[in-house]
Amino acid sequence: MIPGPTHVPTRVLAAMATPMVNHRGQEFTALHGEVQAGLKRVFGTVGDLVIYPGSGTGGMEAALVNLFSPGDRILGVSIGAFGDRFVQIARRFGLQVDALEFDWGRAADPGAIAERLAADGEHQIKGILVTHNETSTGVVNPLEAIAKARGAHPALLVVDAVSSLGAVEVRADDWGLDAVVTGSQKALMIPPGLAILSLGPRAWAAAEKATSPRFYWDVLAYKKGFAKASTPYTPALSQWFALREALRMLEEEGLENAYRRHRLLGEMTRAGATALGLELLATEQWSPAVTALYSPVSPAALRKRMREDYGVVVAGGQGRVSESVFRIGHVGCVEPLDLLATLAALEMSLSQEGRQVHLGEGVAAAQRVWMKERSGEL
Amino acid sequence: MIPGPTHVPTRVLAAMATPMVNHRGQEFTALHGEVQAGLKRVFGTVGDLVIYPGSGTGGMEAALVNLFSPGDRILGVSIGAFGDRFVQIARRFGLQVDALEFDWGRAADPGAIAERLAADGEHQIKGILVTHNETSTGVVNPLEAIAKARGAHPALLVVDAVSSLGAVEVRADDWGLDAVVTGSQKALMIPPGLAILSLGPRAWAAAEKATSPRFYWDVLAYKKGFAKASTPYTPALSQWFALREALRMLEEEGLENAYRRHRLLGEMTRAGATALGLELLATEQWSPAVTALYSPVSPAALRKRMREDYGVVVAGGQGRVSESVFRIGHVGCVEPLDLLATLAALEMSLSQEGRQVHLGEGVAAAQRVWMKERSGEL
Repeated sequence: MIPGPTHVPTRVLAAMATPMVNHRGQEFTALHGEVQAGLKRVFGTVGDLVIYPGSGTGGMEAALVNLFSPGDRILGVSIGAFGDRFVQIARRFGLQVDALEFDWGRAADPGAIAERLAADGEHQIKGILVTHNETSTGVVNPLEAIAKARGAHPALLVVDAVSSLGAVEVRADDWGLDAVVTGSQKALMIPPGLAILSLGPRAWAAAEKATSPRFYWDVLAYKKGFAKASTPYTPALSQWFALREALRMLEEEGLENAYRRHRLLGEMTRAGATALGLELLATEQWSPAVTALYSPVSPAALRKRMREDYGVVVAGGQGRVSESVFRIGHVGCVEPLDLLATLAALEMSLSQEGRQVHLGEGVAAAQRVWMKERSGEL
Repeated sequence: MIPGPTHVPTRVLAAMATPMVNHRGQEFTALHGEVQAGLKRVFGTVGDLVIYPGSGTGGMEAALVNLFSPGDRILGVSIGAFGDRFVQIARRFGLQVDALEFDWGRAADPGAIAERLAADGEHQIKGILVTHNETSTGVVNPLEAIAKARGAHPALLVVDAVSSLGAVEVRADDWGLDAVVTGSQKALMIPPGLAILSLGPRAWAAAEKATSPRFYWDVLAYKKGFAKASTPYTPALSQWFALREALRMLEEEGLENAYRRHRLLGEMTRAGATALGLELLATEQWSPAVTALYSPVSPAALRKRMREDYGVVVAGGQGRVSESVFRIGHVGCVEPLDLLATLAALEMSLSQEGRQVHLGEGVAAAQRVWMKERSGEL
């Protein structure tokens, strides 16, 4: 129950064990076609995706080096550790970042972004970096509103959707998201090892002009291969097989149903934790993918107890809240029953760590949410 | 029978289907320790390895951006397509490359490298790029001799061992190889998706000073994690599980035996092909990992016939020989019997494509090599 690498469904694990094929041969052509078609539905785009062997962080770097040039001014919106990382990568490549930071636990304010852009009458700002779901705080930014806040300003909107895509709606084309990055090991339900980048027409044009040095991440090398279903360097074939299977599963469930399931999981977690007297780090725009909670006992001891005594693995806090927070991931292949079990383990562990707990109270609160959802009241 | 992605043994495929673990938890600590120990034996180094989610090309880029700075002079030794790629990446990052090219089919001449270095009395040359096994031509460079040819010149020796490591001996520490790059999908017998980089003490020191922009590939971020068995970004866990299993298999076979098996496979291929009247692209230093052959008929038609009629997949030629050459990979999990079958399929396909062939003649030549090896005459 960590926010990635998430639990991989058995069907997908089995696909990971598929024997190799020639990555320049006909089997790969079929695989390429099905994976691209499935991903386009999840990203909400008609454009081909760039699929790298890499981690999500690699995808973030790829977006930056392909779209911008050293010295470019960028507005880096951060609401937590991953927003900070995006800014850090940009600075490493010589971009001039104006950081727009919001308190941990808050979402970005589209109005504040609009103000910054309005003050930039000469259009010096070339890009806006936004985290969709901030995994460190459990807050999901209002992406569509942020995209609207950009208005007619020509800055490219670059979105880190590593922990959101597949769990929270993303409509890259409709919302005008110029670049969207994701990783494989979150809501896409496959093991880590792929970074996936969606680029809109303005981003493709920017890639033709950007002067940041790049070879491995160069999207133009990928673009040449789209028509012949070929990647410039050896693709991580096993993850491609797995992704094909996971995309079939998402199609079977229905994307809308997957989003609804994640919203339910988020609400159940909040209801359960709140009933146990725990305080959330997030004060608004709660994430359907991960919930960060202040621990009333040592978070390290609590996590150890949950893992060793009850077999449930939850994540620690990140960055400035690493000593005070723990996080329950509920993204990807997670069912409401898993969450009831997690809350039960949390109750027992809190009790054993000396916290006064009415066993079953958190579970009951989550059950009530689930029953409401089943009866159509949610 | 292509030179990567190579056939993955069943034990390793099964390991690819291992469920996820917390990459910041204790299971990963154990996995990290065993994988590092096994890799150190294969690289011939005592230093910890940097293991990226990525392809071999990513590892080549990683070596360059960590060791050098824009404007640095580099000697780029090339004997084929992958040597050219190394030079191309270096130039993309603003390095000044003096290319030292040898004819396709030839190995690099250590004497010529020594001459270039001797002419550089002021030690302007900061690095030497060498391909160990050139997959496009089927030539293995005399790595130890090249390392010796460097003498007391301080240039860092950077080796692309993507298609050699595990099939041909590499002794990074003993030979003073400052950086060695490999990929997962060749002799290491696991699916593509890992790039692995070994750095010697001088290379680690260079990484502290190099100014090429980098974040994802930054080895210093990895160095911080060695002691606590942690990677800075999410590792490609499935490939780690697979690598642990493959390293166990290499250990069971014995590295010396694996090298001997690859030499045998190379000799069998050459004997078989020569008996069928085929000409090798390589004229010396034949690779134990891959054999490139001029095709007496259309190589595309020959490969199609082998694949469709006889179920054997071989590779096409690369770059300037793509219209005239095909390649038999014999690297990784390949046994002499596989090679006899491949030669048999080659004979039948050549015959059907109109070439005069005595069926069994190539197979027989390879059999004689194998029998000689069995009786200790080889």
